[in-house]
Amino acid sequence: MSPSQSLIPVTPGSTIGILGSGQLGRMLAQAAAQLGLKTHVYAPDRGPAFDVSTLHTLGSYEDEAALAAFAESVAVVTYEFENVPAGAAAILNAHRPVLPAPDALAITQDRLSEKNFLSGLGIAIAPFRAVDDAQGLASAIAQLGAPAILKTRRFGYDGKGQAMLREGADLPAAFASLGGQPAVLEAVVPFAREVSVVAARAGDGSFSAFDVCENQHENHILSLTRAPARIGADTATAAVAMTRKIMDALKYIGVIAVEMFVVEEGEGASLRERLVVNEIAPRVHNSGHWTQDGAVTSQFEQHVRAICGWPLGSTRRHGQIEMRNLIGDEVHRWRDLLGESGACVRLYGKHEARPGRKMGHVTRIIGP
Amino acid sequence: MSPSQSLIPVTPGSTIGILGSGQLGRMLAQAAAQLGLKTHVYAPDRGPAFDVSTLHTLGSYEDEAALAAFAESVAVVTYEFENVPAGAAAILNAHRPVLPAPDALAITQDRLSEKNFLSGLGIAIAPFRAVDDAQGLASAIAQLGAPAILKTRRFGYDGKGQAMLREGADLPAAFASLGGQPAVLEAVVPFAREVSVVAARAGDGSFSAFDVCENQHENHILSLTRAPARIGADTATAAVAMTRKIMDALKYIGVIAVEMFVVEEGEGASLRERLVVNEIAPRVHNSGHWTQDGAVTSQFEQHVRAICGWPLGSTRRHGQIEMRNLIGDEVHRWRDLLGESGACVRLYGKHEARPGRKMGHVTRIIGP
Repeated sequence: MSPSQSLIPVTPGSTIGILGSGQLGRMLAQAAAQLGLKTHVYAPDRGPAFDVSTLHTLGSYEDEAALAAFAESVAVVTYEFENVPAGAAAILNAHRPVLPAPDALAITQDRLSEKNFLSGLGIAIAPFRAVDDAQGLASAIAQLGAPAILKTRRFGYDGKGQAMLREGADLPAAFASLGGQPAVLEAVVPFAREVSVVAARAGDGSFSAFDVCENQHENHILSLTRAPARIGADTATAAVAMTRKIMDALKYIGVIAVEMFVVEEGEGASLRERLVVNEIAPRVHNSGHWTQDGAVTSQFEQHVRAICGWPLGSTRRHGQIEMRNLIGDEVHRWRDLLGESGACVRLYGKHEARPGRKMGHVTRIIGP
Repeated sequence: MSPSQSLIPVTPGSTIGILGSGQLGRMLAQAAAQLGLKTHVYAPDRGPAFDVSTLHTLGSYEDEAALAAFAESVAVVTYEFENVPAGAAAILNAHRPVLPAPDALAITQDRLSEKNFLSGLGIAIAPFRAVDDAQGLASAIAQLGAPAILKTRRFGYDGKGQAMLREGADLPAAFASLGGQPAVLEAVVPFAREVSVVAARAGDGSFSAFDVCENQHENHILSLTRAPARIGADTATAAVAMTRKIMDALKYIGVIAVEMFVVEEGEGASLRERLVVNEIAPRVHNSGHWTQDGAVTSQFEQHVRAICGWPLGSTRRHGQIEMRNLIGDEVHRWRDLLGESGACVRLYGKHEARPGRKMGHVTRIIGP
C-alpha cells in the first residue's frame, strides 16, 4: 500500500477502474457488472471495453492529471495488460490500490527480471542468457547452442519481438531485426505439450486454481485451449503448486496465468512429465476464457472478487471443455457458430477483422 | 412490419435498442454485448441498465422526437416490460422492427384481452368475468363464487393491482381500493404448484423452450425457481406445447414466459396433473434467471438471438438448478453468498435496497 493511498471499502455499487480497452478489459467490465459494480475504463485508444463500461476516459499513460482523476473516481484499479508503464502505475497507486500490485508488473514486464525471479524461487525454466548486443548474442549462443530463441526483454506478445535462431544464423542481423533492444536468449525446450495454470489469490492469502488447461498455438497465437489438460494428476498438482509459490512470493492479489511446457522423459512405464515455466501473465489470460462458459465462476469474475477483497468463487468445471479463438476472418463464421448446438459464442465487438486479431472465442462442453 | 419501417440487417457490431432501464434491460444489454452487439437503452428514469449499455437516452414514452431518434440509432427495438405505451410502440415500429411485435404487447397489457386470446386458442385458464363497476363485481362474484381475485386489467405486477375477495367481502370498497379501474374477477385455482415455461421463437418459426421450471412466491413476489419442475413428463410436454401454440398464434419473435398452475386431480395411481394458464409475459422473465448460470444459453442471450434473426441456442441445463431472488435487505448478505462455494451471485447495481425491490439473484447447481 502506498502511504498517500486512500483505501475505501469495495462493495457492490462501487466503481472499479480498468486500464486498457481491449477484449480483456471488456470481459473484466462485464464480470464486474454482474456483481453489481460500476466500471471506469481508462485507455489511450477507444476499444471494445468502452462499449460496456459505466464510464470511460480516453487518456494517455503519461497524463498525470487524467490518471489521478481516474484513480480518484474508483475504489481500486486493475489492468488488462502487463505493459502498463511504471510511471502510470505509480501515479495511480498513490491514490488507490493498483492490483495486482506494481511490483508484479515490474517483474513481468521484463523477461530478464521474470526469469531471475523464477530461478530465485527454484522454479525450472529454460536455460537463458541476457543479451545486450550482437557480441553478447554470439557468446550466448555459444553457451546455449542452436536452435535458440531470441526475445526482446520488453513488450513482446503473441510471438512479436521474437526470432528463432538456427545453426549458422546471421547473429548481428537477428539482433538488429528485433530493434537492437536488450534481449534474452532462451534454449529451445523440446516440449510434448503446453499447459497453463490460471489461478487467483486474495489479499488474505487464499488461493484457488482452475484446472490446468492445455494450449495449442498457431502462428504464435493461442488457437485452442482444452480443459483439463491431458497430463498426469501429479503433474497437474505440481503445476498448481508452482503457481501458488509464485503468487505467494509476489503477495499477489488477482488472477495470474502461468504458462508452462510439459517435457516427457523416459519411455513406457518409466515415462515421466517435467514442467518448465515459460512465462507469467499478471492478469486474466486468453487460456482462461473457457471458464466463462465452462466453469461455475469465470476467470474475470474471480479476478474482480480478488481485487475487491471478496471471497473467491468455485472453479468447478461443467465438463470437458474446448475453447477456440476466432482470429481475424474466422469471426465471419459467427452465424454458423451460433447455429451449432451447444457452442457458446463470445464476440468482442471489434470493428475490423484484421489478420491475427482476436475477434471472439467459442467454448464447447465436449464431454462430461 | 410497418410499411415505412427501415429493415437493416443485424450483425455483430449492430446496435440493439432496449426500452426500460431496470434489471431485465440490464441483463439483456449484457447478453447482447457478449454477442458483440452495441446497446442503446431508452427509459424515462435512470436505472441499472444505463451502467452497462453503450448508449442511453433519458426520455419519456410520449416524446415522439426522442423515440424516433432512438429508433433510427438502432437496428431493432425490444423491451424489458409489457407496459410500453401503445403510442410509443407505434412510433418506434414505424422506424425499426419492434420485437416482440406490438400486437403481443397490446394483448398482454390487458388481462381481459389476454384471457380472451387464450380462451380463443382453447387453452385452459381460470374462470373469469370482466368487471367494469361495483355492480358488475357483485354479479361476477355471484357467478364465480368466493373466494375470487379481483385484478385491474392493466399495469399489475408482483401482486400490485390485486385484491383477494373472500365470502362476505365489501365489494364496492374492494372495487374502489383498486382505483375503480376496469378489472377482471378470477376464480381461485386450487393449484398444487406454479410452473412457468420460458421459451423462444424466431422469425422462421423455429422454437426452443427451456425446461419447465417451478416457482414459489412470497408476498406475491417470486422467491424461488427450481429447474426442472417436479411435474410429470407428460405435463411438461403439454406445458411446452401450450406455449408453442401461444407463440405461433402471435407469430411471436423473442422470449416469452407463460405462467401456469398445476392442478392435481384424483389420487394414488389415478392422480393426474392439469394445467391452467395464469398469465403471459411477452419478455424475459424472472423465472428464467436460472438459465444465466444453469444452462448453456441464457434466456437473455436467447431473446437477443431471436430478435436479431440469429439461430436459437442450446437450452441444455448444467444440472438440477435453484434460483433465489434477493429481495430488499436480503442483498446485504452478498458477502456471505459470495463465500458460499458454487453459489452464482448476480447483483443488479441498484442504489437502494427498498423493501420488495429485486436487488439480485443467486443460482445454485444443486445436483446432476
